[in-house]
Amino acid sequence: MPERTRPVPSSLDDQSTMIAGIDRLLSPASIAMVGASSNEESIGGWVFANLARAFSGPLYPVHPRDSEIQGRPAFPSVTSLPEPVDLAVVVVPARSVPGVIEECGAKGVGGAVVITAGFAEFGAGGAALQDQITRTARASGLRLIGPNCIGFMNLFDGVMANFALPATEPLPPAGPVALVSQSGGFGSYICTKAFLAGLGLGWFVTTGNEADVNVTTVLRYLVEREETKVLMLFSETLRDPELFIDTACRAAELDKPIVVLKAGRSEVAAKAAISHTASLVGSAEVFDAVARQYGIFVVETMEEMLDLGMIFQDGRRVKDRRVAIMTTSGGAGVLLADACTKAGLTIPELPASEQEALLELMPEPFYGSTTNPVDTTAQVANVPGAYEKVMFALGASSSVDMFAGVTWAIPGEVNDAFVSYYQGTDKPVALTSTAWLEDLQRGGVPTYTDPQRAANALGAVARQSLRPFRPARPSDWTPDAARVARVRPLLAPPAGERAMLESAAKKVLAAYGIGITREELAGSAEEAVQAAAGIGGPVALKVMSYQLPHKTEAGALRLNVEPSSVGHEYQALVADVGRRAPSARIEGVLVQEMVPARMELSCGMRRDPTFGPVVTIGLGGVLIEILRETALLRPPFDLEQARSALCSLSGGRLVEGSRGLSETEQAAVAEVMVGVGLLALEFEQIAEVDVNPVRVAGGSALAADALIVLN
Amino acid sequence: MPERTRPVPSSLDDQSTMIAGIDRLLSPASIAMVGASSNEESIGGWVFANLARAFSGPLYPVHPRDSEIQGRPAFPSVTSLPEPVDLAVVVVPARSVPGVIEECGAKGVGGAVVITAGFAEFGAGGAALQDQITRTARASGLRLIGPNCIGFMNLFDGVMANFALPATEPLPPAGPVALVSQSGGFGSYICTKAFLAGLGLGWFVTTGNEADVNVTTVLRYLVEREETKVLMLFSETLRDPELFIDTACRAAELDKPIVVLKAGRSEVAAKAAISHTASLVGSAEVFDAVARQYGIFVVETMEEMLDLGMIFQDGRRVKDRRVAIMTTSGGAGVLLADACTKAGLTIPELPASEQEALLELMPEPFYGSTTNPVDTTAQVANVPGAYEKVMFALGASSSVDMFAGVTWAIPGEVNDAFVSYYQGTDKPVALTSTAWLEDLQRGGVPTYTDPQRAANALGAVARQSLRPFRPARPSDWTPDAARVARVRPLLAPPAGERAMLESAAKKVLAAYGIGITREELAGSAEEAVQAAAGIGGPVALKVMSYQLPHKTEAGALRLNVEPSSVGHEYQALVADVGRRAPSARIEGVLVQEMVPARMELSCGMRRDPTFGPVVTIGLGGVLIEILRETALLRPPFDLEQARSALCSLSGGRLVEGSRGLSETEQAAVAEVMVGVGLLALEFEQIAEVDVNPVRVAGGSALAADALIVLN
Repeated sequence: MPERTRPVPSSLDDQSTMIAGIDRLLSPASIAMVGASSNEESIGGWVFANLARAFSGPLYPVHPRDSEIQGRPAFPSVTSLPEPVDLAVVVVPARSVPGVIEECGAKGVGGAVVITAGFAEFGAGGAALQDQITRTARASGLRLIGPNCIGFMNLFDGVMANFALPATEPLPPAGPVALVSQSGGFGSYICTKAFLAGLGLGWFVTTGNEADVNVTTVLRYLVEREETKVLMLFSETLRDPELFIDTACRAAELDKPIVVLKAGRSEVAAKAAISHTASLVGSAEVFDAVARQYGIFVVETMEEMLDLGMIFQDGRRVKDRRVAIMTTSGGAGVLLADACTKAGLTIPELPASEQEALLELMPEPFYGSTTNPVDTTAQVANVPGAYEKVMFALGASSSVDMFAGVTWAIPGEVNDAFVSYYQGTDKPVALTSTAWLEDLQRGGVPTYTDPQRAANALGAVARQSLRPFRPARPSDWTPDAARVARVRPLLAPPAGERAMLESAAKKVLAAYGIGITREELAGSAEEAVQAAAGIGGPVALKVMSYQLPHKTEAGALRLNVEPSSVGHEYQALVADVGRRAPSARIEGVLVQEMVPARMELSCGMRRDPTFGPVVTIGLGGVLIEILRETALLRPPFDLEQARSALCSLSGGRLVEGSRGLSETEQAAVAEVMVGVGLLALEFEQIAEVDVNPVRVAGGSALAADALIVLN
Repeated sequence: MPERTRPVPSSLDDQSTMIAGIDRLLSPASIAMVGASSNEESIGGWVFANLARAFSGPLYPVHPRDSEIQGRPAFPSVTSLPEPVDLAVVVVPARSVPGVIEECGAKGVGGAVVITAGFAEFGAGGAALQDQITRTARASGLRLIGPNCIGFMNLFDGVMANFALPATEPLPPAGPVALVSQSGGFGSYICTKAFLAGLGLGWFVTTGNEADVNVTTVLRYLVEREETKVLMLFSETLRDPELFIDTACRAAELDKPIVVLKAGRSEVAAKAAISHTASLVGSAEVFDAVARQYGIFVVETMEEMLDLGMIFQDGRRVKDRRVAIMTTSGGAGVLLADACTKAGLTIPELPASEQEALLELMPEPFYGSTTNPVDTTAQVANVPGAYEKVMFALGASSSVDMFAGVTWAIPGEVNDAFVSYYQGTDKPVALTSTAWLEDLQRGGVPTYTDPQRAANALGAVARQSLRPFRPARPSDWTPDAARVARVRPLLAPPAGERAMLESAAKKVLAAYGIGITREELAGSAEEAVQAAAGIGGPVALKVMSYQLPHKTEAGALRLNVEPSSVGHEYQALVADVGRRAPSARIEGVLVQEMVPARMELSCGMRRDPTFGPVVTIGLGGVLIEILRETALLRPPFDLEQARSALCSLSGGRLVEGSRGLSETEQAAVAEVMVGVGLLALEFEQIAEVDVNPVRVAGGSALAADALIVLN
């Protein structure tokens, strides 16, 4: 058993108590098991056998009748235990759980893992039972994992409180990767696959119904554990978004990658997830965006999660994204080059001197290539030691940051050389092999079964190493009290109205530094003429009425009105609207400058049930519904993050070339985004913002129309 | 050895000779090997040992000195062989190959597989050597595979003319899947992985430098082989595009899926491909589009290719895309439901009666779900036989077409039940398991290591089964002689000019049934006024000049000119252009009706180095360069294919909802696409067509501007 590393409390004061509580539960010095059995075929017997084989501290089986379980003296109840244990593992039938939890609380037990099913996922009766144990646990400060989970594994402290692994299978050594899974069944599946793939798991925690502790709480705890270097999460729901973001920030500070596989994305799947875990599922699109904003790797498949876990477990980082590719097959080199390019890596041609040095190691005549991809061809096998020498020479090149190869991992010299090269370098290495991966995996070499998977893994290392900025903690942000005081009076539509008038909405935007069109609200034709004269040039006339939120459809606007026609057009417009919508009360006519646009964008804000405010940016105008491509950011975010989101649209082409947005224009759009985000943070009563179009031209970005909807 | 199935000649007469020639080479009744060796460590010894162990017909080693090779009597030369063999396998050094090929030709040998490297991939000297053997072979009607390949495997006829598999490894039984690979090295790698994954390969052919036979020739041959049901191709280049398309059409007729992994997509990779196979690489984008147009599955990774091979090898098809999902873990069910949705499948809720029947099989109390995904939970293990019964009941449901499950493939009853369910149903089945796949694979069950991979495989079966139409053979299309005669005189710009005037280009388009704006070419202000009066309403005035192809940039057009201002604007426009571009010769001014547009599209044509004419359709207007999303079709294609390509844009949203294109508008756009395609086919001298914008509104689609560039 390794020396016990107690977690460092986070800098956030209110989290240290939480972490200490979880620590007592997940890293216990004493354990009791309620429902332990001598029948190892039963869950109670299986879990107890797992506990008994791994834990070196005091372990007490609890059984109402038997005096001995699997050779250990048993106790009739939690109350009768000789000490208030740190952890109670509970596998008794659902109806008996409330009594056990009550006893645990009274006894001063640290926490309980309730493996038993039949709670919130099992109708109203089950939900009531779950409420009951949750209330009881809270009242006594007892932390709960589960119910309806498969338990957890903490190999560092020898805690096998689970039936994920058979008690007869040898335990793998504790590794730097932690797996947290809401699903017990599929979590075990991933766990097994991880072990088979040579992934060094040290932790595996399942949370099931999450009556108390959820996946985020566990992640927040594990990110502080010094021996944990990589965190993997499989989850259908996310109950604690603020803590989740804080955890991501903390992981970024500690340079520990988090890899997330989120299930329940499609409608059918979300429905199934709700039914079997009794929990709500937020928008997958928002989840992905927010997770990425805070530096998390969002993957689409289980294998991708394991692939990243594998490359990250050695903790290597790079300073640039240049890969050396080495194969004995030209075709494999070409495929790997495609894959690396797709993964955002570069494959630089090697300097002439290095190529000459490689050439000297090659068989003669040499039909391959020393350019990069380096193709030794199969002939290399004819020159003893040549393959190994090429590998070391190429791997040592200062022109590359990473090494990727395709090999046939047949046990022998080449395999051994790969292992010794890998162990002697600090460059990330990813090999691809058909099969027979065992030797390489035993040597710790990240080995994949497809070139694209190897390339994606190296791409992830580059992303983790070269991220442009660290995400800021939302908790570090504070509202601007003066601005809040200034804006509050503006947010007051008449009773019963939720959508603000465009004229009022734009004043609010302006208070957040967002450029708006020059404009004035006119109450008469004379005022309109005067306003137009002040603006100069042609103007737009827009009828402001709470009853006409859709001005175009209602015929409530005129565009490009020449100054000389403003009076006449004003009258015509008002008369027209009066005829079409006699019941609409006109609050005035907005006289607005016409602004040119090389491009129309759209910036909005909506509130996600999980993550709260989310700012969107995308192309605007009539095509927006068809294109539907937007970037999402959760506020607070800064101008640089906003600009970067903007640059991610349309594969970066929005900001490329002569037709793309200039740097000044990008900055102006970023200001709109940041402003909308701050507005959403400072006024929770705002349900929705839609600035469409944002007209961009000549270095500026102006809100030409705006909608703010209040709760 | 199975009964020899000789291929059915294709309906295309000129191909039957080709196929017969390839058949003699790939399905030989007698074999000689030049360069055979008794040293099984050498390539010559390895290949001969492979041949000797598998082939039951006459097999002659050729060796200049030894009288016996691996226990068989040897012959000093091809000339001295007792018969003109069907196949000569050649592994002598490159410089000796021309002599051997000459002897083969003189002797009347059917074909040669040249494994030797050092030809076109090895500088000018190698290229000359390759030319020499190619010429010699052609002169004598000898077919050639290679050089610089790894040979081929035909398990149906016991021909192991390769060093892909060690001669000591037992040979797998012949299966329905054929693998064709340009790359020998990576091809062997895929082949090995296929065997390990339980994929039934019957054929593996590598083509290397493709001096004569190329991957397409081999595919064309294999698609006719009755025992071959699935074709997989890994290639960097495609030398015979017309035959490739014809092969795809033939495969579609025979309902044999073709799965292609194309390498050399990125710039670096393409460069590497050129260097190691001495061949050109076409556009990856066009390759993908054309392959898909003709029903081919284009995959992005090797594993995806094997995954599809695995699901297709049992030849099952479906009538709809409904999947039954069964797991013991709710989380796995949710993930699989996500994966199936993403793969385009549906997961219907089961009818109440079926759910009740399932419920009766489940443990009690039952905490899982019978809805679909069906989640038995791990409890199911407590009721002997329950899991198996649920599987059979669910699998038999008439509400689903396919079955997907996540299992732990631990040898035992559940595994056996999966195998017996699979073997007794005609529904496609895809399982996901962590590991221990052997039993399932031996039972033939398509088994995957990730839910998404299983779902993608089922999705591919649905696509193959439900394809809306069979691709038409390009060779069935003939030009319309009358139209060609009518249009030819229109395609005549002045000497030295390549880009036609818009006015002339539109006349050409009109001849192909493409709707164009009403317009007239005016030579004077008076003519312009008259033309505008005829059109009625506001018009556009566009200066026609070969020197001003970009009218907007040159200020050579006026939009929305009122009929009363036409005379004045004409003068102003001509004067303006005269000042700005004094050297531009004005051929006239096009007076064109202004047409409304709800949406602007862009339809173009360019010629790909590999596939020739390709028609593109995408969003038009100013955003086109930023969005850059286009669908591609190779002509000839019909209105339905065109419409379907249009509907694929922007995830289908271009044709959805009230803002999307109506059916009439879709048909009108499809006519533009078909017309541009026919134009490209009938006039090879047209290098490029650009119809941008195609203005769509009110049920019509009109070419509002057009560019035709000639060679």
